[in-house]
Amino acid sequence: MTEHRRQGREARRSAAPARVTNYRGLRHPFAPQKVLSDDAVAAIHDTALRVLEELGIVVLLPEARALFRQGGAAVDDGNGTVRIGREIVAAALAAAPRSIRLRAPNPARELVYEEGALIFSPGAGCPNTQDRVRGRRPGCLRTYEETLKLHQSFDVIHKLGPSSEPQDVPTPLRHYATMRAQLTLSDKPLFVYARGRGQVEDSFAMIRLAHGLTDGDFADGAWCTTVINTNSPRLIDKPMAEGIIDFARAGQLSIITPFCLAGAMAPVTVEGALVLQHAECLAGITLAQLARAGAPVSYGGFSSNVDMKSGAPAFGTPTHIRMAIGTGQLARHIGLPWRSAAGSAANTADMQAAGENHMGLWANLMANATLTIHAAGWLEGGLSFGYEKFINDVEALQTIAELCRPLESAPADLAWEALADVAPGGHFFATPHTMARFDRAFYAPLVADLSNFGAWEAAGAQTSTERATAIWQQVLAEFRPPEGGAERGDRLAGFIARREAEGGAPPRD
Amino acid sequence: MTEHRRQGREARRSAAPARVTNYRGLRHPFAPQKVLSDDAVAAIHDTALRVLEELGIVVLLPEARALFRQGGAAVDDGNGTVRIGREIVAAALAAAPRSIRLRAPNPARELVYEEGALIFSPGAGCPNTQDRVRGRRPGCLRTYEETLKLHQSFDVIHKLGPSSEPQDVPTPLRHYATMRAQLTLSDKPLFVYARGRGQVEDSFAMIRLAHGLTDGDFADGAWCTTVINTNSPRLIDKPMAEGIIDFARAGQLSIITPFCLAGAMAPVTVEGALVLQHAECLAGITLAQLARAGAPVSYGGFSSNVDMKSGAPAFGTPTHIRMAIGTGQLARHIGLPWRSAAGSAANTADMQAAGENHMGLWANLMANATLTIHAAGWLEGGLSFGYEKFINDVEALQTIAELCRPLESAPADLAWEALADVAPGGHFFATPHTMARFDRAFYAPLVADLSNFGAWEAAGAQTSTERATAIWQQVLAEFRPPEGGAERGDRLAGFIARREAEGGAPPRD
Repeated sequence: MTEHRRQGREARRSAAPARVTNYRGLRHPFAPQKVLSDDAVAAIHDTALRVLEELGIVVLLPEARALFRQGGAAVDDGNGTVRIGREIVAAALAAAPRSIRLRAPNPARELVYEEGALIFSPGAGCPNTQDRVRGRRPGCLRTYEETLKLHQSFDVIHKLGPSSEPQDVPTPLRHYATMRAQLTLSDKPLFVYARGRGQVEDSFAMIRLAHGLTDGDFADGAWCTTVINTNSPRLIDKPMAEGIIDFARAGQLSIITPFCLAGAMAPVTVEGALVLQHAECLAGITLAQLARAGAPVSYGGFSSNVDMKSGAPAFGTPTHIRMAIGTGQLARHIGLPWRSAAGSAANTADMQAAGENHMGLWANLMANATLTIHAAGWLEGGLSFGYEKFINDVEALQTIAELCRPLESAPADLAWEALADVAPGGHFFATPHTMARFDRAFYAPLVADLSNFGAWEAAGAQTSTERATAIWQQVLAEFRPPEGGAERGDRLAGFIARREAEGGAPPRD
Repeated sequence: MTEHRRQGREARRSAAPARVTNYRGLRHPFAPQKVLSDDAVAAIHDTALRVLEELGIVVLLPEARALFRQGGAAVDDGNGTVRIGREIVAAALAAAPRSIRLRAPNPARELVYEEGALIFSPGAGCPNTQDRVRGRRPGCLRTYEETLKLHQSFDVIHKLGPSSEPQDVPTPLRHYATMRAQLTLSDKPLFVYARGRGQVEDSFAMIRLAHGLTDGDFADGAWCTTVINTNSPRLIDKPMAEGIIDFARAGQLSIITPFCLAGAMAPVTVEGALVLQHAECLAGITLAQLARAGAPVSYGGFSSNVDMKSGAPAFGTPTHIRMAIGTGQLARHIGLPWRSAAGSAANTADMQAAGENHMGLWANLMANATLTIHAAGWLEGGLSFGYEKFINDVEALQTIAELCRPLESAPADLAWEALADVAPGGHFFATPHTMARFDRAFYAPLVADLSNFGAWEAAGAQTSTERATAIWQQVLAEFRPPEGGAERGDRLAGFIARREAEGGAPPRD
């Protein structure tokens, strides 16, 4: 086995050529895989329908229960339980759109949210951030804005997500700061937290104002998304139910996502956890369709297992991988696009963090997830967003994105002339076939260092985590707001000033 | 998006229960994927046949050329070129076995090398080793033996490979040391370097002696494997050709592996590099069948691209992934089991190292590679074997191995009673359904630390690379040689002493 002996020969040094990449509008390159038999998928679907029919789900918001009652569900207002017949669910699934246009401030950033699409969004919902310069600290508006700049700067991040929670902004005013930041610093599809009607309607108003949209324009495609986490098992709280309703009525996309940790808030088996996840998803989708038939809504799953030692959520595990692939099977069973997630439970940007995220990313490739949330930067099971991890994860996303462009396999790609021209034991460096293609043949790494050990050591022996620091620093230093960002901010200024003077909108209890 | 809020609730601490795993005899859990159209596969196969017919391949060993001539090839002894007609190749492919029994000192470690099998072997061929205690240093017999102990201690490492080159043993004597170490410290399928007939015949003799095998016993299944790297492009050197012949005649497994770096020793396109790889593979397989029809021989590929910046080999790249999946398509086209590889070009056990290896491992899953070499521990593009990287990579291999056991999806797995018993917003910790399964439900991590940030920081804030040090140290400290190892060593002692006194066997020029 003399593979290493070959390496001296091809050491040719040259500057990295410019290479044009296109990581937008990706489509899944691989066929969806299975972990469940077709019978098991049908059994999970049927059992989930039984859960909704016989056990029901507690819906804390009276307005939502009223919608369920109008839709034919059996509602107990005393304990909040809603029992949903399978024909009601079937009608909702028939009404839910299969393809959703995700609008963006920049039309070139628009996405189509449908089966076969491959969309990445960053690690989100993190109360803390960490980087190698400033350590670990609570999220603040500055880091919220910095993380937006990072999202904006890599095309493979297709839509925004709230990586860092700006805890230095009072909650009644926070959504003004986050919407202004998204609309001025980025031109990608937007994220709005469903923290109650007041904040949601403010946020919708800001999107319309920033773009000069009428209500009709605003409903023509989804201008923003939210994630609806059910309170597994079998409970939908008030802000989540209200979010489903408000997003549906406004034609915006709510992404229903039970967070079913097997062995904790869900049964310990993959199949059992998927029954619960599926039931809760179907309940949320049904509520959206009862609020407005045809409303954009996404199926979703982010289920994994708890660690047997610590009881903490685990990610990138065999159970997580199976859950993701099984969720994909269930989503295709009902014919809807869906979200999944990657992410890591590691506490720092190390091999564990990389390994767990890669496992999740590949699980979602195997599962053909429409949207992979937490695709980059998510540490500590979501308690922290890591800058260096984000950069390293973007390398993985770019690698995957490269696979989405099919090989052309044109006759010239077989390289017959080059093969005939190069003598046995020779090399292909300078053949016309190579020279004509070399500058665009290969992916140019972002943070991977392929220099040899001596050169690497001489340059400071930095790990890829250490190298990532200089990369995010450079990205932030060179950041320029996107075209139209300043104008969008100007259009928002009056509204935000007025609403802040009025005290803003507190989050829903 | 309130996923992180859920985490407090399920924090249940308990000791990690014993869980029985079985990572032997794995079968691929996923369907093979494609990067090439069926037409492109046929075109690559056809062009490779044209390469062999029209351009030919240089074979430096006269004995091998004589076999090709006897088989009907057009041989030019002046420049060593052998032109092989496609009917000769077709006859060889018809003769090559589809399923090969890989024997092992311990019968329970035997493997079946065939389509659908999923076999991992460690990072191999490395002139250096590195770990966090002793730094980076040239390989020696001590590290060769240590790495064998690491291989032996994890069931997910299915066969041996020469992780560390024992450079402190003179080359004419090195194979005695390596065979003795393999046969005494491990009971897994063996690796023999093809460094000339003298060493190979000595190695075969040692295997027979250690196990008390007749020549007939020895040929009943392959007791050892070797890797045959062609000298791309279109050249087979003397030790490699002799290895193919000697392994074939003895019924041992040679694994033909061109190392076709696109843009260097191979055309810059995926398709062109695969044409060359395929042609060289077919030449090697043909030589094996000409030496002995029906001889065990493996198709193989380990092709990737060079880095555009440094000219160095790159791994885990989009090109590497495509090459692996394309190689799988070609292997299935000719109906033979095959080897692939993972590995990393990183210089230390960091996120790059983890990321590149995960990309390679998943590529090989998508490709349904029979054998993935360099699955754990390979750093610096094979110039170094890293102990901490090995431990972290084993975590990835174990995660994959867990996926190989199909879900049972029995009615009880749907957890209907548990779902009915747990109140909305409650938890499943103490349900009978959970209690009956919890101790075997989930994979228990090897090196991943899932404790929260505070606990992790209080315990020293170690990265997974740092934690891996204690793990390999403990494995080595607790290592006990396998049953029969000492006896095998005793049976070898006289032979080795005599051959060493005779001066051993120098490697083939």
